[in-house]
Amino acid sequence: MSLCPFIYFFLSRDLSAAPRTGAWQTTALFRVRCRTKSLSRPPPAQSRAARRFSLSSPVLKYPLPSSHRSHFLNEEQLFCSVPGRLSLLSSTSKYKVTVAEVQRRLSPPECLNASLLGGVLRRAKSKNGGRSLREKLDKIGLNLPAGRRKAANVTLLTSLVEGEAVHLARDFGYVCETEFPSKAVAEYLTRPHMGRNEMANRKNMLLAAKQICKEFTDLLTQDRTPLGNTRPSPILDPGIQGCLTHFSLITHGFGSAAICAAMTSVQNYLNEALKIADKTYMNTGDQSPAETNKTIDKMDKHRK
Amino acid sequence: MSLCPFIYFFLSRDLSAAPRTGAWQTTALFRVRCRTKSLSRPPPAQSRAARRFSLSSPVLKYPLPSSHRSHFLNEEQLFCSVPGRLSLLSSTSKYKVTVAEVQRRLSPPECLNASLLGGVLRRAKSKNGGRSLREKLDKIGLNLPAGRRKAANVTLLTSLVEGEAVHLARDFGYVCETEFPSKAVAEYLTRPHMGRNEMANRKNMLLAAKQICKEFTDLLTQDRTPLGNTRPSPILDPGIQGCLTHFSLITHGFGSAAICAAMTSVQNYLNEALKIADKTYMNTGDQSPAETNKTIDKMDKHRK
Repeated sequence: MSLCPFIYFFLSRDLSAAPRTGAWQTTALFRVRCRTKSLSRPPPAQSRAARRFSLSSPVLKYPLPSSHRSHFLNEEQLFCSVPGRLSLLSSTSKYKVTVAEVQRRLSPPECLNASLLGGVLRRAKSKNGGRSLREKLDKIGLNLPAGRRKAANVTLLTSLVEGEAVHLARDFGYVCETEFPSKAVAEYLTRPHMGRNEMANRKNMLLAAKQICKEFTDLLTQDRTPLGNTRPSPILDPGIQGCLTHFSLITHGFGSAAICAAMTSVQNYLNEALKIADKTYMNTGDQSPAETNKTIDKMDKHRK
Repeated sequence: MSLCPFIYFFLSRDLSAAPRTGAWQTTALFRVRCRTKSLSRPPPAQSRAARRFSLSSPVLKYPLPSSHRSHFLNEEQLFCSVPGRLSLLSSTSKYKVTVAEVQRRLSPPECLNASLLGGVLRRAKSKNGGRSLREKLDKIGLNLPAGRRKAANVTLLTSLVEGEAVHLARDFGYVCETEFPSKAVAEYLTRPHMGRNEMANRKNMLLAAKQICKEFTDLLTQDRTPLGNTRPSPILDPGIQGCLTHFSLITHGFGSAAICAAMTSVQNYLNEALKIADKTYMNTGDQSPAETNKTIDKMDKHRK
């Protein structure tokens, strides 16, 4: 199974569910993981203080409101673990939510209010859930002004934490890669263009579409918006990175990953269609028109 | 806001959440809705008895196991209402699950076993949830053989009922249409092809990609796999419809709808890129090379 590089990129961004442990153990585990990581990676170019305020850098486009900037903030710190909404039975994953992720959900473009954030973090049902959430936010230096209004429309995607959003996009990529009927679709859509002359033109169109789609997907895979507990260095111009960051923030990492997942189906279709074009072109070169029709009929029979 | 026709198609397929009512009320509402529909629609071509067994028709490819075929089955009947997994706070939608949907989940390609079905229908946590589910299935003539094994891999998509899967795809389509930065992506990716000669070729490639992507999306919008309480008449050849049905069944309606949602971003990008190509082509026709560079610089400045 060969998933697209984007999905692999996300697989390698450590958003896996934490094992079921107590709050202390999880935090301890999380710290150990951070420490191990910092040993195996090159030292960050920015100091911690610089990183703390870098949400206001042009990369992220949206400056963090002054009420959210605090010297107590440690963005890598675990805020809580959230049970997955889409887990079934025994696979009840828990997703780690960092302080940085909470910060992102409170800032533009989403600007979640306290009750929506409580819902996202699945604290809504607990007694005094709202108050204890405010207190916990206060402790880490994030105080939520009362009467805050959400800025973006609430959709089903709003309820996902980043870890689960990326997991869902990865699973969508898996079904697009393994279950989408690329070959049947290619045979069906190529059927009306089987003549030798038309096929040459069709092949050029397919090649053009392949290149245009590849450029598009390649750009999305270069998005380096902070996600989960990762904070990768940008590789794109601040202008375009800012725009991709907006899309990532509004979908918590689902958007670009899911578009790339869908594009695996498109690319697989294009590859299959090109195979048919090459085969037909070679075959028809040595055949009489009657024989060409026979080939088409054979293909058609196989298709049904 | 102009969503793609596929999303509209799904919007028009009555998968909306039922209001919060008791079981009896919901069933009654559902029946009223079915009756109203049957008045406004042309009479179905198939008799009820014919439709009952039509899961084994070549359209669906997968024959229903004989243990599931029963004279008690009424596919349009409501089996239960399931609270949404991705709803937040006050918007606690309930999704109606019909007997036909339960049948689809128990049949290939998924072949859910009793405990997974219980999880999907959110009965896992209730006392004796498993036994009462079996009894309810038995009453409507669906008896689950013991020791049944699931046939498909469990992913996060498995946990969604069809109503919520389609709702999620619709919301994904909404963010792809309204939040994806098509224009910025078009400006970024068109930048290296701004020369007059190259731009003519680029425009042809973009037009080819647009047509190929449109054909692909158009095919997916013609999928008529039964979904929720709808059972639309197929319009495609049984061969290709069978393949699309497989993909729909494995993703409960999410797959093709989500690919089409992602394709709105691609199509919007292509339209924006074509606008730039047209504009540049017209402009550069009357300009000296120095002036052309000035135009590019201006565009580049705007882009950042």
